[in-house]
Amino acid sequence: MPSLDVCLTPELLSLFDLRGRVAVVVDILRATSSIVTALAAGVSHIVPLSELEECRAYASQGYLTAAERDGRQAPGFDLGNSPFGYLNEALPVRGRAVAITTTNGTRALQLSLAADAVIVGAFLNLNAVADFARQQQKDVVVVCAGWKGNFNLEDTVFAGALAELLAPDFDVTSSDATLAAHQLWQQAKPDLGGYLLQSSHVRRLNSLEANKDMDFCVRLNEYNLVPIWRNGQLVI
Amino acid sequence: MPSLDVCLTPELLSLFDLRGRVAVVVDILRATSSIVTALAAGVSHIVPLSELEECRAYASQGYLTAAERDGRQAPGFDLGNSPFGYLNEALPVRGRAVAITTTNGTRALQLSLAADAVIVGAFLNLNAVADFARQQQKDVVVVCAGWKGNFNLEDTVFAGALAELLAPDFDVTSSDATLAAHQLWQQAKPDLGGYLLQSSHVRRLNSLEANKDMDFCVRLNEYNLVPIWRNGQLVI
Repeated sequence: MPSLDVCLTPELLSLFDLRGRVAVVVDILRATSSIVTALAAGVSHIVPLSELEECRAYASQGYLTAAERDGRQAPGFDLGNSPFGYLNEALPVRGRAVAITTTNGTRALQLSLAADAVIVGAFLNLNAVADFARQQQKDVVVVCAGWKGNFNLEDTVFAGALAELLAPDFDVTSSDATLAAHQLWQQAKPDLGGYLLQSSHVRRLNSLEANKDMDFCVRLNEYNLVPIWRNGQLVI
Repeated sequence: MPSLDVCLTPELLSLFDLRGRVAVVVDILRATSSIVTALAAGVSHIVPLSELEECRAYASQGYLTAAERDGRQAPGFDLGNSPFGYLNEALPVRGRAVAITTTNGTRALQLSLAADAVIVGAFLNLNAVADFARQQQKDVVVVCAGWKGNFNLEDTVFAGALAELLAPDFDVTSSDATLAAHQLWQQAKPDLGGYLLQSSHVRRLNSLEANKDMDFCVRLNEYNLVPIWRNGQLVI
C-alpha cells in the first residue's frame, strides 16, 4: 500500500526523498488555488519563477505576468495572486500563457522537482488530486508551501483532507505529520472558511479582497483538473 | 502581552529569533522527561552532549553517562534514555552528575542557546514550566525536538498543553503552529497515553520497556521543578 506523507514546510524538504514519489504542492492562499483557476479558465500553460525581474521579462514573449509579494500584487504586473484575476472579463486569459512568481508557492514547486511527478493541489481540485494519486499508485508527499518557511494551517488542513480521501487506499497513519493534518482537517471540515479565519496568514491578508479570495479558495472541487509540471511549465 | 510560539522541529529554528525569549525545549519521548526525572531524583547537574565519545569521556571525571541512539541504550554507558534509570535503587543517582547524549533532545537544546533562558519541559513538570513562563513575562518559544528533524506528535501536543495553560496571560493565537498544537492537545487531553499510541515514534519504540516509559512520560505534574541551562549544564 503506498503511503501519504506531509512535508509541513519547504524548509523540511531535505528530510524527504521525493524520487519515485508524487509531490502534491499546495499553497492554498493563494498560489495553487490561482494556478488551478487559471488553467480551468483556459490558460495554456504557466511558468512559475522565483524572481520578479525574471517574471517581468516574459511579457516581451507575449505572456501575461503575475506577481505577488507579501500578499499584494507587485507593481508593473498584469495580475496579482488572486484567483479572480483569471475570472475577469476585462482581461481575457483563454489561450494565453502566464508567467507567475509568488512568495511561497513557486519556491515549494521548484524544491519538489526531484519527484516522479509534481502536481498542484488546492481545495478547488481536491478530488481530482486524489484520483490522480490513486491512479499513480506511488507514495505521495504533500509539500505545504507554508508562510516564509514556517508552518501554516491552511496548507496543512488541505493535506489532511487529502489523507481522508486516500485513507482507504494509502497508508495515512505512519507519519505523525499526516496524523496531525488529518486531525486538524476533522476540526476544520464542518466550516472550513470559518476555521481558517483564525489562521495567522488569513488575518495577515485581512481585507475585502482577501476575504473574497478566501471564500473562493475553500470551495471544494470547483474544478476537475490537475496541473502537472512538464518541462518547466504547469499544464493540464 | 507576551506571545507563545512553537518551533515544530529544530530544522525550523533558523526562522525564529530566540534573543530576548525563553526557549522551552521538549523531547517528551524521552530526553526531557528523563532530565526532569533525574534532577527530581537528586542528580546535581546534567551535561548534554552531541557525541557518544564526548559523553563517554565524562566517566573519568566521576559522571554517570547516559546515551541513546535510535531509541536504545548505547553499549558501554551507565544509563539509556529511560526515566526509570534515575529511579533504580541499584544505581543511586542522588548527588551524582550525569553526562547525557540523545538523538534529538541534545540537538534541540544546543540549537536553542541564543535564548535569554533555556529551560526543559515535559508533561512531568508542565505546571512548573507554565509558572516559570508567567514569572519571566517574556515571549516563549517551545522548541520541539521532533524525530530526526521531522515533526512529531508528542512534543507538539506538549506545546499545545502549555498554550492552554498560558492562554489567559499570553498571546497564543498569532502563530499557526501554536493554534494547531493547541487543537491537537484538545484531542489528546482526555486520554493522552491512548492518543500517543498512534504516534509513529511510539510505535517505533514499541516494546515492554518503551510502553512502561510512555505511561510514565505522559503523567502530568509529577515534579515541581524546572531544569534550566547555566554554563553548559542543566540544573535546578
